[in-house]
Amino acid sequence: MTGTILSIGDELVLGQTVDTNSAWLSQQLAAIGCIILRHLTIGDHQLQIESALRESAQLSDVVLISGGIGPTEDDLTRQALASVMNEPLELNATWLAELEKFFSQRGRPMPPMNRIQAMIPRGASMIFNHAGTAAGIKTTLQRSDGKPCRVYVMPGVPKEMKKMFQTSVLPELQARSGGAVILSRTLHTFGLGESAIAERLGPLMHRDRNPSVGTTVSAGVVSLRINSRFDSMQRASDELARIESECRSALGDLIYGQDEQTLQEVVANQLFEINARLSAGATPYTVTTAESCTGGLLAKLLTDLSGSSGYFHRGFVTYSNEAKADLLGVDPQLIQQYGAVSEEVAKAMALGALDRAQARAALAISGIAGPTGGTPSKPVGTVCIALATVDGSAPQVHARTFLFPGDRDMIRDRSAKMALTMLRFHLLGKPLPF
Amino acid sequence: MTGTILSIGDELVLGQTVDTNSAWLSQQLAAIGCIILRHLTIGDHQLQIESALRESAQLSDVVLISGGIGPTEDDLTRQALASVMNEPLELNATWLAELEKFFSQRGRPMPPMNRIQAMIPRGASMIFNHAGTAAGIKTTLQRSDGKPCRVYVMPGVPKEMKKMFQTSVLPELQARSGGAVILSRTLHTFGLGESAIAERLGPLMHRDRNPSVGTTVSAGVVSLRINSRFDSMQRASDELARIESECRSALGDLIYGQDEQTLQEVVANQLFEINARLSAGATPYTVTTAESCTGGLLAKLLTDLSGSSGYFHRGFVTYSNEAKADLLGVDPQLIQQYGAVSEEVAKAMALGALDRAQARAALAISGIAGPTGGTPSKPVGTVCIALATVDGSAPQVHARTFLFPGDRDMIRDRSAKMALTMLRFHLLGKPLPF
Repeated sequence: MTGTILSIGDELVLGQTVDTNSAWLSQQLAAIGCIILRHLTIGDHQLQIESALRESAQLSDVVLISGGIGPTEDDLTRQALASVMNEPLELNATWLAELEKFFSQRGRPMPPMNRIQAMIPRGASMIFNHAGTAAGIKTTLQRSDGKPCRVYVMPGVPKEMKKMFQTSVLPELQARSGGAVILSRTLHTFGLGESAIAERLGPLMHRDRNPSVGTTVSAGVVSLRINSRFDSMQRASDELARIESECRSALGDLIYGQDEQTLQEVVANQLFEINARLSAGATPYTVTTAESCTGGLLAKLLTDLSGSSGYFHRGFVTYSNEAKADLLGVDPQLIQQYGAVSEEVAKAMALGALDRAQARAALAISGIAGPTGGTPSKPVGTVCIALATVDGSAPQVHARTFLFPGDRDMIRDRSAKMALTMLRFHLLGKPLPF
Repeated sequence: MTGTILSIGDELVLGQTVDTNSAWLSQQLAAIGCIILRHLTIGDHQLQIESALRESAQLSDVVLISGGIGPTEDDLTRQALASVMNEPLELNATWLAELEKFFSQRGRPMPPMNRIQAMIPRGASMIFNHAGTAAGIKTTLQRSDGKPCRVYVMPGVPKEMKKMFQTSVLPELQARSGGAVILSRTLHTFGLGESAIAERLGPLMHRDRNPSVGTTVSAGVVSLRINSRFDSMQRASDELARIESECRSALGDLIYGQDEQTLQEVVANQLFEINARLSAGATPYTVTTAESCTGGLLAKLLTDLSGSSGYFHRGFVTYSNEAKADLLGVDPQLIQQYGAVSEEVAKAMALGALDRAQARAALAISGIAGPTGGTPSKPVGTVCIALATVDGSAPQVHARTFLFPGDRDMIRDRSAKMALTMLRFHLLGKPLPF
């Protein structure tokens, strides 16, 4: 089964509203194995809606339309559908009665303009709207190849659309889909580029495989999306598990989490687990931060989760050199000699924070987030990150220098994520794999 | 001028990612009077991209494409464009050199698969990417009516796409658009709800006015969007200025900024100006932070702008009660008596930070970001914010308690924005207007 999703509304083509209906409907269709060919967004123009509907119907077994069935003059989807069907609009007595009931329950007469919402093209059927005044419409169009295309018209208001889809459209489509299923899994990595990840995955990413593996990048996170499309749920699930396992073997600990998990959530869970294993009364494992260029972002990420007070008690934002000396005890001579952005100073910051916070681990970040402040030897994007830890005996510290691409926001974001990644690998007891 | 926006990516048609590029590009096109005919979203299938490109080019004067120019096998937009142009892909030496420089600066060899990102169809031109490894592509296709259709291919990553559009595509399109003009201005407020803002604007928001005024809400910021649509640039500009001035009269200092300005940028600019007015050698005006529930977010916002070291030297993340005592000198008795989330403790935090940082202003935040930790008298969302300032004589401090709606992220975001707002009004020499 193939599908096209058609969204109608001037506010969408003008960019004043982001279309979230199409993505939601796509997820619903994908889950029952429907192949989504395209999303198409059209303004409130009857002729444009008609031609979009005609071309979509030619391509697809199902066309889902949302929007353009409100009561106002610029709502033209039902007129467009009637024109494509070459049928007149007729009053649907059932829905007219519902509309009148809707308004009388609210103690006011039905405005005359709402009457249009009970109009349905002759030969089409009404879909009940449990959440609003616009009835939906369903019908079948004949394609030029003789096959039928099923058309469903739903409201544009996401809440009404979702309710109508789940109640009245999805059951019909499920019956038509013959049981095909797509299951998906997303695996997240941070630290290597998209091409380096793809190289490690090798043939797993070849086109036309099922399950398929693709990569996307968002805010430095390279994610693998595995889609498994089969006729039975069991098969789709087994194949997904098999390919997920192959991806995990290829990438190992580069994968930090899956689906909705964030990097900070994964690190928080590592810390929660460490503390959960401690015997009663033991001092908890705590982490502290010493931030220069990230200005508090790393501490913010470490406190994103409720319960973070279990492992995070305090952090230092030491933007100036004086603050690094005052709050962390960094020797001004060191800054003089190596510069504030240096592995030496980052290490001193981490050790100072570790000591002053009496924490078990301290992350320090010093870098040039730009756009100004770069030099030939330390261009914008140069960031030194140190991790100091203590486990009974003398503290350990190591530092790394990175060159992050992008603008100030991106450099700060990547710096904080890299610091979290260094902590994640430390807690795994493994070296950073890049 | 008519335009079509084409978004490429399996993650979009599968609904795994909501397409925000199309809405953003539409706003940009609308602002220069371009009529957007449709948005079209296609998966990573070369033949489908080709037919979508062909049909879009037939309809439009401009086709903007985003996505499908990454380095992996499922990135097929450049191949589809080459096929529609009936030309081979050729290596672009300029971009190859940029790519090699990009990787060598990061101390690693260019992965062989990235080479494809320097391939451009013969006869097309390369568009420089200032924020990533994928070069853009521009070319002109001939329509069957003999008219040209200008095609621009940009990355799918929103940040890279926006930068490329503004730098290289928009200036070309502006030169091509003649006639009808839509000018827009967005004014931002924080602190009052959408309906309170709408009430103050009154008839300015009536439908069918030109210029029109509408409100949108995003992350607590209530924004007014003014659209002025006229045949001449002069008229559109004059009318926009007139309505903007009426909106500003109605809302006064509730408006903190316009268009792309963020609240933190506006506050940073206030601080830059204060310091620019100081005589040489004078101690700069500096701000410090003492954060509990926001965990570093406020400091992060205050350091979002390059040059923030002029007014921000250090900040304190005091998540635990012990940290509040150690780092800020808050009397544990005070916490015992009033609770950590109280105006008394917030004031003590602000005064302690002011003193220890030797700053001119200190913002302190203590609250219950949830989802756990709420009580009947202090439910989740309860946040106390204090501002301490000193101007020669004894420090002044005041505090306010807010109840913010939403989840943990929202509560932390609103808390930090409200703290910035308290500082903004203090620097304006005015009381908080709500």
